[in-house]
Amino acid sequence: MRRIRGVVREEIVRVAAVCFGEMGYRAATLDTIAAKAGVSKVTLYKHVASKEDLLWAVFERTLASFQQGLAEIVRQDLGPDEKLRRIISHQVHLLTSNLPFLTVFFSEETGLPPHLVTRVAREKREYDRAIERVVRQGIRQGLIRKLPPTLVVFALLGMVNWLYKWFRTEGTLGPAEISTLFVDLLERGYLKPATGQSGDHVLRALRAINRRLTQVERRLAPQVG
Amino acid sequence: MRRIRGVVREEIVRVAAVCFGEMGYRAATLDTIAAKAGVSKVTLYKHVASKEDLLWAVFERTLASFQQGLAEIVRQDLGPDEKLRRIISHQVHLLTSNLPFLTVFFSEETGLPPHLVTRVAREKREYDRAIERVVRQGIRQGLIRKLPPTLVVFALLGMVNWLYKWFRTEGTLGPAEISTLFVDLLERGYLKPATGQSGDHVLRALRAINRRLTQVERRLAPQVG
Repeated sequence: MRRIRGVVREEIVRVAAVCFGEMGYRAATLDTIAAKAGVSKVTLYKHVASKEDLLWAVFERTLASFQQGLAEIVRQDLGPDEKLRRIISHQVHLLTSNLPFLTVFFSEETGLPPHLVTRVAREKREYDRAIERVVRQGIRQGLIRKLPPTLVVFALLGMVNWLYKWFRTEGTLGPAEISTLFVDLLERGYLKPATGQSGDHVLRALRAINRRLTQVERRLAPQVG
Repeated sequence: MRRIRGVVREEIVRVAAVCFGEMGYRAATLDTIAAKAGVSKVTLYKHVASKEDLLWAVFERTLASFQQGLAEIVRQDLGPDEKLRRIISHQVHLLTSNLPFLTVFFSEETGLPPHLVTRVAREKREYDRAIERVVRQGIRQGLIRKLPPTLVVFALLGMVNWLYKWFRTEGTLGPAEISTLFVDLLERGYLKPATGQSGDHVLRALRAINRRLTQVERRLAPQVG
């Protein structure tokens, strides 16, 4: 029974996210949500205390998915460059597969009571800082260019989070493709260019060949002269 | 008199943008706006028809500033790479100097009546397409990498527009600094790498060596044979 209760509440929260996202939190009513979820208002009230309760549920789930994914990536034994790559991919997949939740999360914060606004702000800040630590580690290890770390974080999050404004599941670009392209765009921006190294190798090799050629030419010189 | 009327209305719209941004459109009242603007509600009603009228004024001004700046850049005789650079800078400066307007613009669209939602969507689409044309031109001219143009536009706009979520005028990074860093990050991402040219140098050097080697081989040939 408890499990069924949980499933019903989950479904109501999901429908609420869609309604809030499409109509705006203030305009959406519990009646609309009940109708769209296919339950009576009496049943709805057995699962949720108020519209505000539903809004918070949307925020809580969104925060939890963000944090869980990030924590899993950060605790792995990977280089900071690979961690950032996975963070971008995690963020793209989360956004594209939970658009209604993310739309509410990014635009309906004013509907929350002040103490929850403060809590959301704190948890977002902690999230940003966790990514910032990865960036700083990358800079220390010489993998990432010496850029202001907060700016790298906001540039990365901005590019990815903006998806909630334009991504359509029926569009031509899928999450995997977008993720690959964003990683490519961002890495060219923040990673230390590998061309410096390969360029050096090539140049060193060329100089060595040049030296050998000059020696060969010198040996041949007497004959020519 | 007409000019004073205009100034008063401008100020009311500005205060409305701040109120809508801080409290959310639905929660803000005309009473609060009148009080914050330092006018009576009677005076307020002489200048604005309704709260919705004020919301639309915020959207109209925001759209106009975006479009005007873009049009000025696009019509200039500049390369597509320089145009994109100026578009990024224009967008950063617009956002950082009009935060309340942009906050409302990006999060209170659900407060508009349907016909204006449609209009805003159309004008935004036209704006995106104008930037997309610059990207396509850049690809045709071989300045920009062959990436999906819409994705370049959304990546660019996302990185910059996200400013409304994190930029604080009292922060350590100013608009000029942010603009320079964003241009740098984005250009490394979408411009064709200049290393292609240095690669050409390497290739030329290798061909020269090859020619010298061929000559050396020719000289050695009789002796070896």
